[in-house]
Amino acid sequence: MNLRPLHDRVIVKRVEEERTTPGGIVIPDSAAEKPIRGEVLAVGNGKVLDNGEQRGLDVKVGDTVLFGKYSGTEVKVDGEELLVMREDDIMAVIES
Amino acid sequence: MNLRPLHDRVIVKRVEEERTTPGGIVIPDSAAEKPIRGEVLAVGNGKVLDNGEQRGLDVKVGDTVLFGKYSGTEVKVDGEELLVMREDDIMAVIES
Amino acid sequence: MNLRPLHDRVIVKRVEEERTTPGGIVIPDSAAEKPIRGEVLAVGNGKVLDNGEQRGLDVKVGDTVLFGKYSGTEVKVDGEELLVMREDDIMAVIES
Amino acid sequence: MNLRPLHDRVIVKRVEEERTTPGGIVIPDSAAEKPIRGEVLAVGNGKVLDNGEQRGLDVKVGDTVLFGKYSGTEVKVDGEELLVMREDDIMAVIES
Amino acid sequence: MNLRPLHDRVIVKRVEEERTTPGGIVIPDSAAEKPIRGEVLAVGNGKVLDNGEQRGLDVKVGDTVLFGKYSGTEVKVDGEELLVMREDDIMAVIES
Amino acid sequence: MNLRPLHDRVIVKRVEEERTTPGGIVIPDSAAEKPIRGEVLAVGNGKVLDNGEQRGLDVKVGDTVLFGKYSGTEVKVDGEELLVMREDDIMAVIES
Amino acid sequence: MNLRPLHDRVIVKRVEEERTTPGGIVIPDSAAEKPIRGEVLAVGNGKVLDNGEQRGLDVKVGDTVLFGKYSGTEVKVDGEELLVMREDDIMAVIES
Repeated sequence: MNLRPLHDRVIVKRVEEERTTPGGIVIPDSAAEKPIRGEVLAVGNGKVLDNGEQRGLDVKVGDTVLFGKYSGTEVKVDGEELLVMREDDIMAVIES
Repeated sequence: MNLRPLHDRVIVKRVEEERTTPGGIVIPDSAAEKPIRGEVLAVGNGKVLDNGEQRGLDVKVGDTVLFGKYSGTEVKVDGEELLVMREDDIMAVIES
Repeated sequence: MNLRPLHDRVIVKRVEEERTTPGGIVIPDSAAEKPIRGEVLAVGNGKVLDNGEQRGLDVKVGDTVLFGKYSGTEVKVDGEELLVMREDDIMAVIES
Repeated sequence: MNLRPLHDRVIVKRVEEERTTPGGIVIPDSAAEKPIRGEVLAVGNGKVLDNGEQRGLDVKVGDTVLFGKYSGTEVKVDGEELLVMREDDIMAVIES
Repeated sequence: MNLRPLHDRVIVKRVEEERTTPGGIVIPDSAAEKPIRGEVLAVGNGKVLDNGEQRGLDVKVGDTVLFGKYSGTEVKVDGEELLVMREDDIMAVIES
Repeated sequence: MNLRPLHDRVIVKRVEEERTTPGGIVIPDSAAEKPIRGEVLAVGNGKVLDNGEQRGLDVKVGDTVLFGKYSGTEVKVDGEELLVMREDDIMAVIES
Repeated sequence: MNLRPLHDRVIVKRVEEERTTPGGIVIPDSAAEKPIRGEVLAVGNGKVLDNGEQRGLDVKVGDTVLFGKYSGTEVKVDGEELLVMREDDIMAVIES
């Protein structure tokens, strides 16, 4: 079963941080904080602009992305916890 | 009797979740929470953009969609409980 | 005496629900709630878009429409209680 | 002395309701409420749209109009109490 | 010393109301209220629209204008109390 | 060291008011209030409009300008207290 | 590991102020305040305008920039504390 996000939405799967790994992103956090790094699983067709054009997204499936801790809405699909968020909630793509 | 939604609105019928089915979407919820998966019964002609163009919707009748728990307005038609919401309240189409 | 609504406004007359009729729309309500189904009596010439175009409305005189319980402003004309609302307050046209 | 309203503003003179007249508009009101029917005394040159066009108004001098009870700003000119409001505050033109 | 207002701003000098003069504008007010009639002393080059056009103002130097009691910002120039406000704060030009 | 403001921002240096000078601007103020007159030290390249055009500013380096008492953000550069504000926070250019 | 910011976002590394250096920017602050000067490490491809054009940013990698004390979101990458912010949060480029 797949989710096909609409417009400028993307489906993201959180990546569990290995907090002791060298080179990993570590967000200054209290013990209970969840990581805000994830992998893009699906992207929408793009945002519809005021001039009627639908502009494709800048992130693509497979990108590892950085996003705000409270971004998106959680859904559980086939036992996996996923997030649906707008591309604008994504701050950066992490290139390794 | 039919409802023909205006502009970017859609008519959605909630799908009752079979919570124990493998592969079903389960939203992390308390016992009383209603599922947020539904079937699109009718769609409007599209949103009128600032340039005067009326852009057709990306969801179509028969799509199974995912939407926010508090999205839309409830109406009861011919004994059925339906929801009227804007397409932008729909987060993703569920493809099986 | 007639009311000619401006721009994207419409004049609507509430239809009293026959609550026990099969096939009627019944809104889940407490005893005191008013129905939110009505007949369109007059429509404006349309909304003026940012590009200067005046776009005609999608509802027309005679349509039976569904609208939010608190939509519009009440006026009494020739003894009749009417509502003036914007087309965007109308959720759907009811086709029988 | 005349008032020439700017852009999309209009000058309106309230019409005192004859509350017992058949065919008159009567707003459901408490005893102290003021009528919200008036005559247009002057209109502006129109609203300036985003594309630079100045679009003339849809109401004209002499129109009897219906407007919200708290619409506009009161001014007293030559002993007369008038209202300055935007055309968008006018809900409908009353045609007799 | 002169003030050259920017864009859609205008410089206005309040006109003291002669409250007993026939034909004067009198705003329903308590004893302490200040008049809201003034003379335009300077106007900006106009508002920059979304399409890049700078549209000249509709009021011109010398116009007597009507504006809201709390409109604009007070400045004292060469001993004179003036107001800087946007043209949109001006409701009407008073023609005698 | 120089500051090059971005887009529609300007760098302004407050001018200390000589409060007893004839012809100076005096804002009605309590003893502690700071003057709101300043000299423009640097201007950005202009605001990017919705049509993609970058429109140059109307104020230029060397202009004496009038601005709201709480406008802008204070920075100290090379010992000087400066303000960074948007051009829209500037009400007028003072011409002597 | 690199961060590639999206659209109009930039990655900035705070520059520790040498508070006693002549010519350094010193923000009026209490003892605990952090400096708001930084170096741009990466920039997005630009903001998507309403006309569909993606406009490149005005700041570039290597620029020293001035930004508001609470601007941006903190992330730690490879042990470094970085900030992700929108270009519009940057007030000026510091040229030495």
